[in-house]
Amino acid sequence: MGPAARATKIDVGILGATGAVGQQFIAQLAGHPWFRTTWLGASGRSEGKKYRDLTWRLSTPFPEEVADLAIEPAAPGDAPRLVFSALDATVAGEIEQAFAAAGHIVVSNAGNFRMDPLVPLLIPEVNPDHLGLVPAQQQAKGWSGAIVTNPNCSTVFLAMALAAVRQFNPTAVSVTTLQAASGAGYPGVASLDLLGNVIPFISGEEEKIENETKKILGSLVNGHVEPHPVVVSAQTTRVAVVNGHTEMISVRFAKTPSREDLLYAFASFWGRPQQHRLPTAPAKPLIYLNEGNRPQPRLDVEREGGMAVFVGRLRPCPVLGYKFVALGHNTIRGAAGAAVLNAELMSVEGMLD
Amino acid sequence: MGPAARATKIDVGILGATGAVGQQFIAQLAGHPWFRTTWLGASGRSEGKKYRDLTWRLSTPFPEEVADLAIEPAAPGDAPRLVFSALDATVAGEIEQAFAAAGHIVVSNAGNFRMDPLVPLLIPEVNPDHLGLVPAQQQAKGWSGAIVTNPNCSTVFLAMALAAVRQFNPTAVSVTTLQAASGAGYPGVASLDLLGNVIPFISGEEEKIENETKKILGSLVNGHVEPHPVVVSAQTTRVAVVNGHTEMISVRFAKTPSREDLLYAFASFWGRPQQHRLPTAPAKPLIYLNEGNRPQPRLDVEREGGMAVFVGRLRPCPVLGYKFVALGHNTIRGAAGAAVLNAELMSVEGMLD
Amino acid sequence: MGPAARATKIDVGILGATGAVGQQFIAQLAGHPWFRTTWLGASGRSEGKKYRDLTWRLSTPFPEEVADLAIEPAAPGDAPRLVFSALDATVAGEIEQAFAAAGHIVVSNAGNFRMDPLVPLLIPEVNPDHLGLVPAQQQAKGWSGAIVTNPNCSTVFLAMALAAVRQFNPTAVSVTTLQAASGAGYPGVASLDLLGNVIPFISGEEEKIENETKKILGSLVNGHVEPHPVVVSAQTTRVAVVNGHTEMISVRFAKTPSREDLLYAFASFWGRPQQHRLPTAPAKPLIYLNEGNRPQPRLDVEREGGMAVFVGRLRPCPVLGYKFVALGHNTIRGAAGAAVLNAELMSVEGMLD
Amino acid sequence: MGPAARATKIDVGILGATGAVGQQFIAQLAGHPWFRTTWLGASGRSEGKKYRDLTWRLSTPFPEEVADLAIEPAAPGDAPRLVFSALDATVAGEIEQAFAAAGHIVVSNAGNFRMDPLVPLLIPEVNPDHLGLVPAQQQAKGWSGAIVTNPNCSTVFLAMALAAVRQFNPTAVSVTTLQAASGAGYPGVASLDLLGNVIPFISGEEEKIENETKKILGSLVNGHVEPHPVVVSAQTTRVAVVNGHTEMISVRFAKTPSREDLLYAFASFWGRPQQHRLPTAPAKPLIYLNEGNRPQPRLDVEREGGMAVFVGRLRPCPVLGYKFVALGHNTIRGAAGAAVLNAELMSVEGMLD
Repeated sequence: MGPAARATKIDVGILGATGAVGQQFIAQLAGHPWFRTTWLGASGRSEGKKYRDLTWRLSTPFPEEVADLAIEPAAPGDAPRLVFSALDATVAGEIEQAFAAAGHIVVSNAGNFRMDPLVPLLIPEVNPDHLGLVPAQQQAKGWSGAIVTNPNCSTVFLAMALAAVRQFNPTAVSVTTLQAASGAGYPGVASLDLLGNVIPFISGEEEKIENETKKILGSLVNGHVEPHPVVVSAQTTRVAVVNGHTEMISVRFAKTPSREDLLYAFASFWGRPQQHRLPTAPAKPLIYLNEGNRPQPRLDVEREGGMAVFVGRLRPCPVLGYKFVALGHNTIRGAAGAAVLNAELMSVEGMLD
Repeated sequence: MGPAARATKIDVGILGATGAVGQQFIAQLAGHPWFRTTWLGASGRSEGKKYRDLTWRLSTPFPEEVADLAIEPAAPGDAPRLVFSALDATVAGEIEQAFAAAGHIVVSNAGNFRMDPLVPLLIPEVNPDHLGLVPAQQQAKGWSGAIVTNPNCSTVFLAMALAAVRQFNPTAVSVTTLQAASGAGYPGVASLDLLGNVIPFISGEEEKIENETKKILGSLVNGHVEPHPVVVSAQTTRVAVVNGHTEMISVRFAKTPSREDLLYAFASFWGRPQQHRLPTAPAKPLIYLNEGNRPQPRLDVEREGGMAVFVGRLRPCPVLGYKFVALGHNTIRGAAGAAVLNAELMSVEGMLD
Repeated sequence: MGPAARATKIDVGILGATGAVGQQFIAQLAGHPWFRTTWLGASGRSEGKKYRDLTWRLSTPFPEEVADLAIEPAAPGDAPRLVFSALDATVAGEIEQAFAAAGHIVVSNAGNFRMDPLVPLLIPEVNPDHLGLVPAQQQAKGWSGAIVTNPNCSTVFLAMALAAVRQFNPTAVSVTTLQAASGAGYPGVASLDLLGNVIPFISGEEEKIENETKKILGSLVNGHVEPHPVVVSAQTTRVAVVNGHTEMISVRFAKTPSREDLLYAFASFWGRPQQHRLPTAPAKPLIYLNEGNRPQPRLDVEREGGMAVFVGRLRPCPVLGYKFVALGHNTIRGAAGAAVLNAELMSVEGMLD
Repeated sequence: MGPAARATKIDVGILGATGAVGQQFIAQLAGHPWFRTTWLGASGRSEGKKYRDLTWRLSTPFPEEVADLAIEPAAPGDAPRLVFSALDATVAGEIEQAFAAAGHIVVSNAGNFRMDPLVPLLIPEVNPDHLGLVPAQQQAKGWSGAIVTNPNCSTVFLAMALAAVRQFNPTAVSVTTLQAASGAGYPGVASLDLLGNVIPFISGEEEKIENETKKILGSLVNGHVEPHPVVVSAQTTRVAVVNGHTEMISVRFAKTPSREDLLYAFASFWGRPQQHRLPTAPAKPLIYLNEGNRPQPRLDVEREGGMAVFVGRLRPCPVLGYKFVALGHNTIRGAAGAAVLNAELMSVEGMLD
């Protein structure tokens, strides 16, 4: 099975299709070889409008293929079996649950069910086996459908970098993030708060990084996820960048690797998406940049379709052992692109049949 | 002795008067109650020009009192005994040495002599006793003058915050800085490198923070400075901010203080500048902000004349114990203002008589 | 009568005290020698809260003198006779009318009554005689109080520059504005819309500049304002600047002045605020900068307390005759500072007794 | 002849290959169906280095096809017949002349020969017939080669918009530009000058727009270009945008068109590049956006490969008749892309054979 087009595409719906992440889902699915967007749902004021009558706020071209879809209420019914959720956390809980109960496969970017012990918090290169939680989820919750989630945008990049080096047993991680405006959605952060400024706080973000990372790196044992013992400390900031979260990371390892060990681990990191050549999988999930002042959001974040994580400046840390920089595209690999890759993995695993 | 005007002001010179830090020195000394700028030195193209014919690039008003001073060569001679040095590191070494040898007191912002074991790396609230190195310096180098330095701009804020809590024996510090454009001088960083971007590297900066902090917090023992045993790891970035370095700091303490202990230590931190009411000393060197998303460069950095360090978000760090945010004005408390405060301290200590 | 303190200060209230302009009013009135803020009104959620419990979003220090005032409902009653209005246009109409009917002097920054033929649209240096509309306003509307307005933020700077040269009969003006984020209030423009971007549209702004300018420069004839015949065309844009509207202006004059004529007219422009030395009047309302690349928001807009208009680059325009650049502080001279100066003028004119 | 690949590609060289525009040339020519970059020339420090060892500063991927080319001296010799010039104006005059004399076709982005009466100042959609100057140029200068230029970056967008409506006889144009940082090259504008700021001056830019526009729209009569009689007045500013010059344009027409006339003229504008389907020609050179707040650099400038000009907000101008907004990509359609399109036109015109 490769990234070639399918005889019949799978119809997909998008919940929360009008927001910032919803638009990124539409862009990510435009021209997708396996999936075809046929249903758009949103709560509130946009109901009934055609998509072409809403404001398109991405710099990528407006995808004509959804132009004539009308916005449906965010309730199961006509929606196709596979729905992506870009819903806001304030409403995602109830709506996603209703869809799962009604038999839909909900591939969600919302945070509500990420830490639910029965819900996979999935990065296809890192923990594809966590999809094994789904049958227990269905049984316990009495759902004919299911919910599968992707991590918070800043967690993804850290978790992928750590996964590449997990054979050296990371025990403690300290990370400071410099996060882009697009991570807060639209309208999100006021320009008066961000122009020439740094906001050293993002609500709930540090806890998400600290907790989600442990679950993602955890092991599936007897049908539940045993969190990884690594201790994570996060400090999160918002900076005047449009797209791209930069992360300054320090790690202590139980087994002390050499710098070459780590560089080799980054370079050879690889997973199911690459093995199956999933349509939106990057050729290499981690790309180490040798230049001494990279990665940088403006120069690097749009490369590889926004699906790779860029790493650089690996060097000794006097306190924890090693430190390095990671960068990823927060609305692609950190949100809509993550969910689409999750669905691609589920497709080749036969979970969408 | 208080901040009142003196009967006779002390004449001062400024080396490197035409650069970004040089202009900040001029601004900082404009209307100073003790010092009067009477001499401006610079190397190169500006020699002989009147100061009013150069471009004033600060947003503070152009100080008329230096308008008619002509730029002199950067060599001792007519310069007054006390000179501030805003020289670039590429030329500061030789020039400052020549001035010290010729009997001048050089209060320098340049990095060249900061780690010289005989040169005080001074923060008046933190290590005023390090001025005790000066006699040994003069004897060893055969200088009738002397050199006294202030730390690198991002070191100052970290060192002041740590000094406030040093009774709890900090043993390890991890810091990520988000540094302003003005820290790179003028023209400094190209706008194409900084607009909507983060540069995760500043040449030499991490080493300076890691080493200078240990010297500043060190103890003067038998005429030399015993470095503080704290281990410091720094990651430095440049962000699209004009003024103000933000620092995300984690600390491990040997004695585990309570959060209240630390807040009390920040609030009660105080030193010789406050005791002597030095003219440019802030009323409180550290100001803790209770709001959950502060300090922020755009809202806080210009307060207190740019001479205080703002601290906030003290909370537990799962890896090192505590974490918090610090912010300071890099061209004032991190450069020109630091040097002027050093000279004020030297004045009340009788070292300028 | 000069800017000296008064024996008894005049109590003032601020309507809309919690918004961006309301905060600027509080800052502008902090320590004012004639006025003392004793009442804060706002509609909605903040009612009943103490001012110190709201978020202060200016970089100037929080004014302790209003800290313990509680937010009152935006209705006449306990409010002092003089109230400044920073209300949003959506609610200002009804509320200001109610205050005027109840005997209050409303000095308003809102746009609702600016083009009312009986309401002065006042710039004290330009059309102080327009205050002569007030008695007719009171009679026609049956108000014991009155409403006096200041222009839209981008109109002020254009109108002041044109007023300085009106003896040469300007007949046509073309202006393109580059307006700051703070002009849109808080939260105002989303950072995703402004980072690295230009928005070539501001709702209603072009019409305001085109119409208000004619009224301000108009003549009071037989108790009504005859609009000035100048034709104005405006194009307005929003740019990534915090404070300061830059305006690129071209003017055709009926009498063709020389460049020296115009420079002299700018330099000698002067009015009642300067004559009476009103407390917040700038020494010179227009300041011409000779440097070829000025004025610039970041370098110039905070000078003179934000109350002067900076002009530069006067040169021939092949199409209209002359062109030049103007810059002003949109939340000070373009909003709160404009209203406070209006009230100062009304005070020396005996209209607040 | 269409955009299909050629049997044999034409070898091309790039003069000034290491600067900002040079890099854009390399990007623009990467994978070009007709041209193949085989020679890179630059003056100064980079000579002899392989291209892969220089810093690639564009966000597009580094083009591997030039990676192993070494930088040659900027002198004729081994260079192929067709060379693109991205040279700085300080050196372009002499070097381009030497190449033309040595038989090279120099397709230049430099300003030095743009106003030379014998040199085409070419926009393929606007004045393809100006290529008719070349034989006279060769004869007069005694060159076996030739020089063909493209306009200054901000001139292109204005000239294309005016060309679309020239049947209505534009007689006067007033334009204010809001220009991107990349227009100044690298390092170009200091970040301290551009962060949160507007610079209301760009050296030489206003004169270029005012003069070049008249030549481009001029008629080739008896072997020389008769400038168009339109009078142009330009005001130019630099704003905190990475790519994309926004232009606020007012036009007076001799024949007064209706708004529909103008919209139709914009929509139907078309030229030789579209007729010949030149490889980098946009499908439509002008794209009118109906949304009331467009075009915007961040959302629109990268569309159509940066080769289209976006127009919007057409509305009456009280002073000149009509006003509208235009936007173009300054380093693509305003520089390297313009030159490559010029060469494509020359190719189908048989001038490269």
